[in-house]
Amino acid sequence: MPDKNLKSWIEISADSDFTIHNIPFGIYNDASVRHRACSAIGDYVIDLYELAAKGLIKVDKHVLEQETLNDFIALGKTITNQVRNTLIQLLSDDNSPLKADTAAFGTVFKKQSAVKMLMPVRVGDYTDFYSSIDHATNIGAMIRDPKNALMPNWKHLPVGYHGRASSICVSGHSFHRPKGQQKPADAELPVYGPCKLLDIELETAFVIGKSTELGESVSTANADDYIFGMVLFNDWSARDIQTWEYVPLGPFLAKNFASTISPWIVTLEALEPFRTKGYVQDPKVLPYLEYSGDKNLDIKLDVFLKPKGGEENKICSSNYKYMYWTMEQQLAHHTVNGCNINVGDLMGSGTISGPDPSEYGSMMELTWRGTKPITLKDGTQRKFVNDHDTLIFRGHCEKDGIRLGFGECSATVLPAT
Amino acid sequence: MPDKNLKSWIEISADSDFTIHNIPFGIYNDASVRHRACSAIGDYVIDLYELAAKGLIKVDKHVLEQETLNDFIALGKTITNQVRNTLIQLLSDDNSPLKADTAAFGTVFKKQSAVKMLMPVRVGDYTDFYSSIDHATNIGAMIRDPKNALMPNWKHLPVGYHGRASSICVSGHSFHRPKGQQKPADAELPVYGPCKLLDIELETAFVIGKSTELGESVSTANADDYIFGMVLFNDWSARDIQTWEYVPLGPFLAKNFASTISPWIVTLEALEPFRTKGYVQDPKVLPYLEYSGDKNLDIKLDVFLKPKGGEENKICSSNYKYMYWTMEQQLAHHTVNGCNINVGDLMGSGTISGPDPSEYGSMMELTWRGTKPITLKDGTQRKFVNDHDTLIFRGHCEKDGIRLGFGECSATVLPAT
Repeated sequence: MPDKNLKSWIEISADSDFTIHNIPFGIYNDASVRHRACSAIGDYVIDLYELAAKGLIKVDKHVLEQETLNDFIALGKTITNQVRNTLIQLLSDDNSPLKADTAAFGTVFKKQSAVKMLMPVRVGDYTDFYSSIDHATNIGAMIRDPKNALMPNWKHLPVGYHGRASSICVSGHSFHRPKGQQKPADAELPVYGPCKLLDIELETAFVIGKSTELGESVSTANADDYIFGMVLFNDWSARDIQTWEYVPLGPFLAKNFASTISPWIVTLEALEPFRTKGYVQDPKVLPYLEYSGDKNLDIKLDVFLKPKGGEENKICSSNYKYMYWTMEQQLAHHTVNGCNINVGDLMGSGTISGPDPSEYGSMMELTWRGTKPITLKDGTQRKFVNDHDTLIFRGHCEKDGIRLGFGECSATVLPAT
Repeated sequence: MPDKNLKSWIEISADSDFTIHNIPFGIYNDASVRHRACSAIGDYVIDLYELAAKGLIKVDKHVLEQETLNDFIALGKTITNQVRNTLIQLLSDDNSPLKADTAAFGTVFKKQSAVKMLMPVRVGDYTDFYSSIDHATNIGAMIRDPKNALMPNWKHLPVGYHGRASSICVSGHSFHRPKGQQKPADAELPVYGPCKLLDIELETAFVIGKSTELGESVSTANADDYIFGMVLFNDWSARDIQTWEYVPLGPFLAKNFASTISPWIVTLEALEPFRTKGYVQDPKVLPYLEYSGDKNLDIKLDVFLKPKGGEENKICSSNYKYMYWTMEQQLAHHTVNGCNINVGDLMGSGTISGPDPSEYGSMMELTWRGTKPITLKDGTQRKFVNDHDTLIFRGHCEKDGIRLGFGECSATVLPAT
């Protein structure tokens, strides 16, 4: 467990996501730089290129001025953890050369409010899992049969599918409501038009930190070496398009019009103190999916809906700890057939729902397919997401006086074109 | 229609894929160069970097020494077609400076047998469709119900799903038989082990030649501007893994252990003379899927199985013209929701089966799930693909004295590790 008394000489508010225990990685730009690798502390981003130029971190500067973190991550955890530990040292030591360097404010340190956060990684392949038992049970109960909500394979393997990498956008974007084919239940033929049942999916995703060759597998025991860190992820879904298209080959246009990723990658090392027991898996899994130790994570997740010009409404509070399948199992399964992974690949958790109805991670579940609308503070109701709504995910961990968070994962829906 | 009397001053055998009417694009290397953009004529590759260095084609040399064709393709069809037309001119004109240049053999021209063909593009996203009505009907009849073989959505939209880009390999590779979970029909629980039902899928794929922004759609009328060209594609499939895993989110580990692509991209312009009428679509499709003109292509496709040290056995002859959905419809559908596409993205046709049993594009169909094994020339039988079998796809077009082809798409199965 890290030292809860460790403090930075930079002032950090009590509810900040970017404490001395976090030190995440991202990419920013502003009027003066096109793209720079950075970390965060309190209200500031920390420009890693400038730190390297000062010789305070030992990384080739060139790697820190790329469009994405891929090359930095590919240096390997020995290096990237060293950078993180050096940052912790530099930011907590009262005798740090950085503290003495008054010119650092404006070059190394920039106000987060004054910069723009960019896509942290170039995603080669994006995979989405379906690993929350409460979510899979709710959906199965709604669209199939409450008595046999889970498919026969669900408890034997972490069900997953390939998603679209090109349409993953960084937090703060907006997108137009997708159009496509739907087949109303009472209609004989499908119709074409704007999606009527636009939904969120509250997810996290992990970023691959180490590549494999085709034919290689990653065991659950070694999986953490391949997981660089985590982000928040909104796997936007068009439920009406999905219902009509998804049999037999899975979701396609219902999911590939936009997904939202939070800009800060919180390292697996920062998250270690928040490990917690995994779901008790019954039936017993096959040996290649067995694992030891506490591999779930206690990450509090909140979803807010903000109508245009209106207030934020918290519509869901869930937790990553509810996951049935762990990231280590997901990765072992994904590679058991020899499928190769690359640095920057993204693997989504699937919607993270908890057992309580207030913990459901999608509108589909929260409003039970629109049958129980949510009433917002402004008196309007929502069955699904309306045009001009902004959906904001936040996530943080807190334990024994140590806190860290993910920042925001936010996007706004514009009307269909 | 191009001039069938157009001949190259380079000797080309009558059955060559690489006639003056083809002029495809690829990437090669040999002992002297790391990666170069190239074309092909007869038995030769044509080094485009060397041609540019001589000032014979007007393209920035730097673009022609990249690892893949992405930057070249991104120049746009105005440029790439100009390069192709210039090549046709240089190779057919008896007064061409290239013919007079005796030093060109060994620098510009290299024997195909002396070079190695590499992955032609860096695939950002790979999508696979399911657009052959004979294939979809056969599979539906086998695993569901012969009377309702096609799902209700099948004739209303080109069903597709996202595949894994990382495991696409260029022709000539080998890979280990994948391992994974299967559930034998008579077993209560799934088992783990090497795939027993390893299959091929005879496909073509098209390469995206022009990117779009998120929110943009491509109409069927404009789709050809976005299609750079076509390749042969083997979407290797582990049928036993697939059966157990694919409900409800589609194929995953059954498909992402390896796919094989042919190295030469045959341009859409080279294929134009082989356009043919599309499948008569009944029921009528929605307006965004309507198209005019002859949009299918008469491409003869053959599959050969070659046991280790043995002879080639032709096991299937199919044709791209049997496709129900055209590439133009696939692309219009893929982008109708605003999904963005990028240069180098790959879109597979899905298995291309014809109506006759000799035209089925997978072992699953050819042997009807193993119930009708194929007997090879050496007397051995195949229900699915054995270890050490090499599967070779070839494809060509021939009409009115004009012929061109795709080269080979070949891969060898090694035993499970």
